[in-house]
Amino acid sequence: MVSPIVAGIIGAGRIGRLHADNLRVMPSYKLKSIAEAVVGEELQAWAESRNLGSVFTNGEDLLNDPEIEAVFICTPTDTHAYWIEQAARAQKNIFCEKPISLSSAQTSRALQVVEEEGVLLQVGFNRRMDPSFRKLKQLVQSGQLGKPHVVKITSRDPQPPGEAYVLSSGGMFMDMTIHDFDMARYLMGEEVAEVYTRGANLVDPMFGRCGDVDTAVITLTFVSGAICVIDNSRKAVYGYDQRVEVFGSHGSATADNCRPTTVEVSTASSVTRDQPEHFFLERYNQAFTEEVAAFARAIRLQEPVICSGIDGQQAERIAEAAKESHLTGLPVKLPFHAGEESSAASQVL
Amino acid sequence: MVSPIVAGIIGAGRIGRLHADNLRVMPSYKLKSIAEAVVGEELQAWAESRNLGSVFTNGEDLLNDPEIEAVFICTPTDTHAYWIEQAARAQKNIFCEKPISLSSAQTSRALQVVEEEGVLLQVGFNRRMDPSFRKLKQLVQSGQLGKPHVVKITSRDPQPPGEAYVLSSGGMFMDMTIHDFDMARYLMGEEVAEVYTRGANLVDPMFGRCGDVDTAVITLTFVSGAICVIDNSRKAVYGYDQRVEVFGSHGSATADNCRPTTVEVSTASSVTRDQPEHFFLERYNQAFTEEVAAFARAIRLQEPVICSGIDGQQAERIAEAAKESHLTGLPVKLPFHAGEESSAASQVL
Amino acid sequence: MVSPIVAGIIGAGRIGRLHADNLRVMPSYKLKSIAEAVVGEELQAWAESRNLGSVFTNGEDLLNDPEIEAVFICTPTDTHAYWIEQAARAQKNIFCEKPISLSSAQTSRALQVVEEEGVLLQVGFNRRMDPSFRKLKQLVQSGQLGKPHVVKITSRDPQPPGEAYVLSSGGMFMDMTIHDFDMARYLMGEEVAEVYTRGANLVDPMFGRCGDVDTAVITLTFVSGAICVIDNSRKAVYGYDQRVEVFGSHGSATADNCRPTTVEVSTASSVTRDQPEHFFLERYNQAFTEEVAAFARAIRLQEPVICSGIDGQQAERIAEAAKESHLTGLPVKLPFHAGEESSAASQVL
Amino acid sequence: MVSPIVAGIIGAGRIGRLHADNLRVMPSYKLKSIAEAVVGEELQAWAESRNLGSVFTNGEDLLNDPEIEAVFICTPTDTHAYWIEQAARAQKNIFCEKPISLSSAQTSRALQVVEEEGVLLQVGFNRRMDPSFRKLKQLVQSGQLGKPHVVKITSRDPQPPGEAYVLSSGGMFMDMTIHDFDMARYLMGEEVAEVYTRGANLVDPMFGRCGDVDTAVITLTFVSGAICVIDNSRKAVYGYDQRVEVFGSHGSATADNCRPTTVEVSTASSVTRDQPEHFFLERYNQAFTEEVAAFARAIRLQEPVICSGIDGQQAERIAEAAKESHLTGLPVKLPFHAGEESSAASQVL
Repeated sequence: MVSPIVAGIIGAGRIGRLHADNLRVMPSYKLKSIAEAVVGEELQAWAESRNLGSVFTNGEDLLNDPEIEAVFICTPTDTHAYWIEQAARAQKNIFCEKPISLSSAQTSRALQVVEEEGVLLQVGFNRRMDPSFRKLKQLVQSGQLGKPHVVKITSRDPQPPGEAYVLSSGGMFMDMTIHDFDMARYLMGEEVAEVYTRGANLVDPMFGRCGDVDTAVITLTFVSGAICVIDNSRKAVYGYDQRVEVFGSHGSATADNCRPTTVEVSTASSVTRDQPEHFFLERYNQAFTEEVAAFARAIRLQEPVICSGIDGQQAERIAEAAKESHLTGLPVKLPFHAGEESSAASQVL
Repeated sequence: MVSPIVAGIIGAGRIGRLHADNLRVMPSYKLKSIAEAVVGEELQAWAESRNLGSVFTNGEDLLNDPEIEAVFICTPTDTHAYWIEQAARAQKNIFCEKPISLSSAQTSRALQVVEEEGVLLQVGFNRRMDPSFRKLKQLVQSGQLGKPHVVKITSRDPQPPGEAYVLSSGGMFMDMTIHDFDMARYLMGEEVAEVYTRGANLVDPMFGRCGDVDTAVITLTFVSGAICVIDNSRKAVYGYDQRVEVFGSHGSATADNCRPTTVEVSTASSVTRDQPEHFFLERYNQAFTEEVAAFARAIRLQEPVICSGIDGQQAERIAEAAKESHLTGLPVKLPFHAGEESSAASQVL
Repeated sequence: MVSPIVAGIIGAGRIGRLHADNLRVMPSYKLKSIAEAVVGEELQAWAESRNLGSVFTNGEDLLNDPEIEAVFICTPTDTHAYWIEQAARAQKNIFCEKPISLSSAQTSRALQVVEEEGVLLQVGFNRRMDPSFRKLKQLVQSGQLGKPHVVKITSRDPQPPGEAYVLSSGGMFMDMTIHDFDMARYLMGEEVAEVYTRGANLVDPMFGRCGDVDTAVITLTFVSGAICVIDNSRKAVYGYDQRVEVFGSHGSATADNCRPTTVEVSTASSVTRDQPEHFFLERYNQAFTEEVAAFARAIRLQEPVICSGIDGQQAERIAEAAKESHLTGLPVKLPFHAGEESSAASQVL
Repeated sequence: MVSPIVAGIIGAGRIGRLHADNLRVMPSYKLKSIAEAVVGEELQAWAESRNLGSVFTNGEDLLNDPEIEAVFICTPTDTHAYWIEQAARAQKNIFCEKPISLSSAQTSRALQVVEEEGVLLQVGFNRRMDPSFRKLKQLVQSGQLGKPHVVKITSRDPQPPGEAYVLSSGGMFMDMTIHDFDMARYLMGEEVAEVYTRGANLVDPMFGRCGDVDTAVITLTFVSGAICVIDNSRKAVYGYDQRVEVFGSHGSATADNCRPTTVEVSTASSVTRDQPEHFFLERYNQAFTEEVAAFARAIRLQEPVICSGIDGQQAERIAEAAKESHLTGLPVKLPFHAGEESSAASQVL
């Protein structure tokens, strides 16, 4: 039996704690420490209930622990790149939440440091490990659907975030659609050549005041000529709507929403079933566990990471192009980056 | 009981005979005559089996029969406008298959003659009468879905037409997508302001040789800012794929494919159910009957026609813009035509 | 092209008129006459609208018309056997609604006359021609499900009939479950050896006062040891519930309810879809047409009738045994009738 | 925060280890020890990987640990009653797998000891905590379905057990259907008055040689007159088939199978979706966790246990009656046991 990976987490917000609880029950990990800039009583109590001892108030202290092999970066987005560089220089394997940064220059530099230091970096596009979407990927790779012609992604949140979040989010394309851009590349296994965005402010005028949109249809054209269309809304009143379809020359596959139960109720007035799982914590519960298990296999068994730094960077580039298309009203071509096709063709594990 | 409408049909091809058989069993019609340029033995035998007597070889002869009140124009597309004008001048109420013409000038002139003569014109966008799509329209009109934000239309044929058909079809947007353009206007009840097309030739190189596409994703932006996205393919190997979704501020409604049976078979190797109804004759069987019944109500009961000449014209304009967008690679704005909003808001009956 | 079958109908109630309208639009029939004991203005007007001329007030007069080849018996149940005998003696082919009679002696005598006269008799168990149930039969016959082990039939009416109907119906087993007994034999292709009934009066005390039940679970054991279970209710508030499952050694097949549209509506409060088709006229609309088309093929093309007199008789025998089991609280064995296996194995056409 | 419950497990087979892994990740438990008659290297290594120290080879030693508050009995069925008595006398709260015993006398005595000692006993009918079946129970209790008239339970295993298992299982009714008998009582909240069994040996002659059946339809009549029908098979080639329907005066609710993904694949040859979850470990994964969480709440928060000893005993009595009905071919009435209605009406938590 291989020894567990000693891990630390930088950032003890919602997603940091989620990873902490997942790591604790996995035999492949031994979670040792967590760091957070400001530590109150509630956080310290939480850390003790997880046997994590004192919370570090300085991420560098955590990185200085030579026993720690892997670091999970769960801080606010604008510090991801900084911590990636620090962790890489400390020779830690890195799991970083998406996006790597809101700036292509920062992302490039962070990836360069990772490459120089020769550590592993996995980006947290957890949906790649959703059982239904993985099955779509397997169907594409197996050739059962033939050559993919059209990919359709519906991605709608159950409720809009607050104004403060919107202002610091980098905009809907960088914050929300970025998951769908990654899904499109993951399923197609090739790069995007052109982006056209039709965005709108229909849900709440607040988004417009923040210079953002809340509704969008984005068309991606792949190098092969295949087409992907994504539709987003910040507010689907019936719950988290996450559906994907791959249509190819030999067939089509659809992944529908997940629902808490299979119960259908028929009465004199209606026939009803459950709404979709409420939000990402419920819907992608299993994917959050499996992406971390895959990271352990990448460290211990030399499997490729399921989502590389290049994958993270490409999704950011598409998000930037989507924003430009929205602002200009015109399609935007993406520059070709040598050597990137190979990364897009990452295999399903 | 109102008297039946005495009807004639010009054009005895597949769609003309379909209407003939539908009219024969409806108490609101009395089908009297049919005309076709060339009459062989097979056609004459068919006509006799329907008690239609001699087939006219000249449509004008049919129009000269004063007993005939209503004419169904089922000729090739390039003669629709001609027969509309002739029928209007003969004071017949007109049911015409889509599109009215492949030329905006011809369509405009035909509509002008109809208006001058004061006859009724209904265009054969039969999908408006599909039970599932009608229910979507009712849900939009009732306000149950709130303000519509996004409409999604999937429309895929089970197999591509032959080269001769493609060459004379006016192209995929005018021949096939035109149904979806009409559906978008019907469901939204407002006009399209801009069109962006991403087309591709992925199914068969023949389409490319004909200067046409076989795969496309088309984004329509409505005057209100709402967005519609249509995805088309000339070849869905699993059957006729006809699905529509309306997503609004208060909810979403989806219309799925129809299937011949409800049987699901579970074996050691798979769980299977029926493929969708094969093609339009099966899927829109009921809609073909109901559009003709609605035309009878328009004639006898002064109900508005369910799809007017203006509706036909607007769908053609969107198709032309879609083609232009495909050729230029850029979004195309549609000019505003005064007085047209009202036509778009045609009520579901 | 074969000549149409000249047909007459005895009985102009709901089901008689339904058959009349179906026969009128089928090229294989020419409906000539209808008979009804008492003819009012409304009936005569209806008959004229169908070009049926004067309604006969005496069925014998209709039977005396030598041009008529086929007679549809749509009178009240207690006269079915009488008219079968009269029609058989008049050398007409006979389509008779179910059940043949409420008395096994009467049914036997009627079948004997049919046999002596050598005419065709088809009993109106229309559900055999429902597209979904036919597909189940084909799956059983093809061997795809292996050897059938369990058949499950859910059969619930949307609303209970009135007291007068109940009193003359012969009881729920003879009136309603008889369809399910026939379906069980049709799907299994073998005979029932034992019946156990658990009935209850849960819907309305009226049924109890009439000596009848309104809810029941009936277990049929086939000669092979396979088991069928039927559950009935006279009142399913959500609509007509008609589902069948065949479970076998190699797999299982389910036929679900049919619904008017495929629309699903998701809102903040619920996810809803259509209730089942309201009642038998809607659900079995296509089956009513197809059973009559099959009768024409039996007459003109020497195909076997899809449901013979023996099939009708066997269903009645099971209904009688079900009633006896209900009254005694004990399982009831069915006597073996030589030569009947073959009839049960009627093929799906 | 309440202190965790210190727990021990007697029996380290498949189900004992399953509970061990569930208890380890639940904050409400602290799993301290496990006992198993024979301890090999593999078991000791497993125990150490779970920080359980030395495995006790004698359950009494575990019971002698005063720190342990709760004991999980996961031994072979024929020792359940013995360990219940021992654990009760040691003043431990008891979670026992089903059935309590294969003998009504043993079960009664064990329950008496539990009552005398005043400890809690929960029986492991885990399906009560399946999210879909819990929702059915809530729908019944809320009155949304009105008065229940018919309950239908389909329960089929994916593959038959081996001959050794069958011989020691107590027969299909005691081993497999017992879950369904409990489900029927749970959903109805009342007692069974009569049982009729129609069993068959259709899957494998081995069952017949063992004096057992592999296929059965069992009809339960409740005191109120409501009817439940259960259909069982030891072999559903397509997977674990676990469906329940409650039909009542105001509506019906169905719980369908769970499937690993929501993917549907449409090709030229078929439309397929996933088979049901393979077997109970997958399907009832969440229920296994939740039954143990409920037991913790019963201990710490004085909530009633979700499934009492009386519930276990009643299910066994129905199983015995079902077997008697199978052997005699006649319905079997269940004696009324005073005070038991209340236990049947156990609330959903």
